[in-house]
Amino acid sequence: MKKLLAGAVFGVAALSIATAAVAQTKPEDAIKFRQAGYAFMAWNMGKIKAQVVDGAVPYNKDQVAAAASVIAAVANSGMGALYPAGSDKGSGFHETKVKGEFFTDGEGVAKVAVSFNKAANDLAAAAATGDQGAIKAAFGEVGKACKACHDSYRAK
Amino acid sequence: MKKLLAGAVFGVAALSIATAAVAQTKPEDAIKFRQAGYAFMAWNMGKIKAQVVDGAVPYNKDQVAAAASVIAAVANSGMGALYPAGSDKGSGFHETKVKGEFFTDGEGVAKVAVSFNKAANDLAAAAATGDQGAIKAAFGEVGKACKACHDSYRAK
Repeated sequence: MKKLLAGAVFGVAALSIATAAVAQTKPEDAIKFRQAGYAFMAWNMGKIKAQVVDGAVPYNKDQVAAAASVIAAVANSGMGALYPAGSDKGSGFHETKVKGEFFTDGEGVAKVAVSFNKAANDLAAAAATGDQGAIKAAFGEVGKACKACHDSYRAK
Repeated sequence: MKKLLAGAVFGVAALSIATAAVAQTKPEDAIKFRQAGYAFMAWNMGKIKAQVVDGAVPYNKDQVAAAASVIAAVANSGMGALYPAGSDKGSGFHETKVKGEFFTDGEGVAKVAVSFNKAANDLAAAAATGDQGAIKAAFGEVGKACKACHDSYRAK
């Protein structure tokens, strides 16, 4: 239930509730912070991919668990608050690629957000066990959740 | 002991050990990823500050705990690997401000890294309790740890 709520905060509810936490955040800062969150998750996804999926680097349980913890913590951080009104266009670290639909399709956003949160928390749980098969499967689910949001709400 | 090791990985040991996890990371990507990590921590520090230190926004235990979890997870993620050879100059999301001393003063870097890791983990522990006095104190220690590194290793 807590995970579902966190997912909801990422998505729709955030647009009213979580905005209060950062009421003074300017659109360009919000864009910068959300780009930072995604970039930092990408680094950590890359480490898990290299160690567990590609085998390009020897598997290190602690490193993979730490990487998965980052992804879960970022997923649970209420990033919905980083999509305030006025942040549909503009530049943070770079020009935002978000589509206008993200700001109007509350139900669809909530769906991808809940799915992403669940996948991220499942990956952290798998990484803590050290079962590489489970980690690989959970990693795949996170990748699918990322892609689902990108396909719908991120410009090419 | 685990926290100390994590701190060491952030600092000195990372330059040999953790680099293996991201052997193929280009200097400009490493700079981008570390800037992303610091920016995302800054957003989360800002939420804790607004809710617990300044009182500008009503305190929400779950939001503050989630924010502190992000900071601890990023601190424990082995960011030392994001300082590979060749990343002393260059641009990620923006030009790096790191000083050359960061790459030569292994002992000093390890000291600030261990101190930062401990402070970040202490903040997450305090945030989980919901004791605002303890959170405020722990937040102050994280701020001091950030500043210690900035004062020594970040150009103005």
